[in-house]
Amino acid sequence: MELLQQTIQAIRPLDEAVMAATQREIDYCLKPPGSLGKLEDIVRQIAGITGKVHNRINKKAIVVMMADNGVRTEGVAMYPQDVTRIGADFVTSGRMGVNFLAKYAQADIIAVDLGIAVDITELSEVVHRKIRYGTANFLEEPAMTRAEAITALETGIELTLAAIDQRYDLFGVGEIGIGNTTASAAVLYAFTQAPIERVVGRGAGLTDAAFARKKEVVRQAVHLHQPNPEDPLDVLAKVGGLDIAGMAGVYLACASRRVPVVTDGLISNVAALAAMRLAPTSIAYMIPSHLSSEPGAVLLQKITGLTAMLNMDMRLGEGTGCALLFNIIEAALCMIEEMGTFAVLGKSKDEIADKARAYRGEFGKQKKAC
Amino acid sequence: MELLQQTIQAIRPLDEAVMAATQREIDYCLKPPGSLGKLEDIVRQIAGITGKVHNRINKKAIVVMMADNGVRTEGVAMYPQDVTRIGADFVTSGRMGVNFLAKYAQADIIAVDLGIAVDITELSEVVHRKIRYGTANFLEEPAMTRAEAITALETGIELTLAAIDQRYDLFGVGEIGIGNTTASAAVLYAFTQAPIERVVGRGAGLTDAAFARKKEVVRQAVHLHQPNPEDPLDVLAKVGGLDIAGMAGVYLACASRRVPVVTDGLISNVAALAAMRLAPTSIAYMIPSHLSSEPGAVLLQKITGLTAMLNMDMRLGEGTGCALLFNIIEAALCMIEEMGTFAVLGKSKDEIADKARAYRGEFGKQKKAC
Repeated sequence: MELLQQTIQAIRPLDEAVMAATQREIDYCLKPPGSLGKLEDIVRQIAGITGKVHNRINKKAIVVMMADNGVRTEGVAMYPQDVTRIGADFVTSGRMGVNFLAKYAQADIIAVDLGIAVDITELSEVVHRKIRYGTANFLEEPAMTRAEAITALETGIELTLAAIDQRYDLFGVGEIGIGNTTASAAVLYAFTQAPIERVVGRGAGLTDAAFARKKEVVRQAVHLHQPNPEDPLDVLAKVGGLDIAGMAGVYLACASRRVPVVTDGLISNVAALAAMRLAPTSIAYMIPSHLSSEPGAVLLQKITGLTAMLNMDMRLGEGTGCALLFNIIEAALCMIEEMGTFAVLGKSKDEIADKARAYRGEFGKQKKAC
Repeated sequence: MELLQQTIQAIRPLDEAVMAATQREIDYCLKPPGSLGKLEDIVRQIAGITGKVHNRINKKAIVVMMADNGVRTEGVAMYPQDVTRIGADFVTSGRMGVNFLAKYAQADIIAVDLGIAVDITELSEVVHRKIRYGTANFLEEPAMTRAEAITALETGIELTLAAIDQRYDLFGVGEIGIGNTTASAAVLYAFTQAPIERVVGRGAGLTDAAFARKKEVVRQAVHLHQPNPEDPLDVLAKVGGLDIAGMAGVYLACASRRVPVVTDGLISNVAALAAMRLAPTSIAYMIPSHLSSEPGAVLLQKITGLTAMLNMDMRLGEGTGCALLFNIIEAALCMIEEMGTFAVLGKSKDEIADKARAYRGEFGKQKKAC
């Protein structure tokens, strides 16, 4: 609990002065103000995170949290639980979906066993931090104890801090685990009490019957345990998953050390919501990637403000969206380093900054009027 | 006219058999069917384009068409015309928006002067193919002659065929030119007769007054010249631009030689519509990149079926969206090369193909029902 508390307390807001200075540089690039859209937002946000106008990524990592969910015995998932074990094998040998995308982006994968239901100690490339052999079926009992939820969070924090010490400076998160869209939906439902149709999706591909069952399972679990939405640890412990808690830990660690971190699909965005409820400022350190085709993703986007940049109809998880966005982030960071400026038209930085401000004022107004 | 006709006649449909074989490989990768969404679509489409299941990109180019538009004297554009000249200088010396993104994606830029209003022969890196010194102001007379429109199209075709001969195998298009969002809007309006509000946007950043004027200009021009929407050359000549016609030529050339080509923002999608009207099958060779924040972009998406994958609020043009998408395309093409398969679960390709087909049938139905 101490590490969690320390981490949360270390989180500070973004550096507004550096962001303003960066905006000045962005506006001085020869282009209409704001015309590089979210690429500009990325440049400004990362400047606010690191406290430096000029940024370049040194090393990238996707932390893939692996854990099983007891609720899968309720028939809410499409694959046998052993798939998680195979996933752990494949992700450490370069054969999962996230691997080819991470390889292309030159990102490393840190694959962590937080709670796979079977023993996988023979897989030497896995970071072995198993907290329990899968969560309990939360239709019968709480998914885990409060202490276990804290351990999962603190494992995420600890591993991320260690990676930052090894000079990783851009993170993504992913997850592998059977039943984790159900756990995510339950966490989202517990936090928001939104209508069940806005919360529960088909996950990795359910039949009609299994989909109906999944909605019922989420509703029942939350009604049974009545997790307190004001107490994120209570929510995570009662209806969450070890992977969700672990990813929330990654976010908090990044925020505490002023390192940008990219969110992935539905499950990682539920983890982002959990991190935000634990430490509201942490959300400022997150960069969204893609919009999952799960319905809960749209709801989450409204709550967290993390508006997806990629519309890929992807629903695989594993950190696949993060890997894609890494390319865009690194490309964006070249903007103020490489673009020509309004100096060519004999304009000063002050002059352009004034114009851009005026333009943004006018354009902002117009946008609202629509 | 001969080159244009030959090119159009050479365009064949995608290879459906190869696409089906590719789908089989995609489905055999260890993941729920369809869960890599548009990445799977890209892999399948490129297979259908090249006629090969396995594809790897050798060399990438963004063809940037540069031309001025006479209509800019009507106060519809934000910058002085000399900016096009500066753009030509900057784009060939690595300092425009598209440059840093293309450099990151390791793509070359082929910058073509089709009709910059001033002489730029001193810029040695530009491909000099000036057809005229900017188009005429189409509020007074047709933008260009029918012969000039054909020359612009054929220049695009010719340069692209030459690049394909040099082993470029993935293309993007971009444009630099003052007043070209107005010309694009006029072409879109002429083709669709859609309400003016769905067609005209603020371009690179107009004041309220200039925006109102722009709408009026588009309406007047189309009413004055009455271009025949069934005759794309008539539309391009009367209210189009040299850059739009040139980009349409790039698309047609790629389609005729079975090479994938990425569309960019609004203007390039208007060019895609023109290419589609000249040769409907050509659209199958195009891969969309980002959704421009211009209103016409949404309308175009409906007509062409090119649904954007990137939501970056970008409105710079130049091929910036193409450069970003190149990374995603190249990453996607690693999928079937690198992912592990269902063989690990002892499943055969036939077995998985049957399951995936059944799943797609069911999932497709559900999607429609929503």
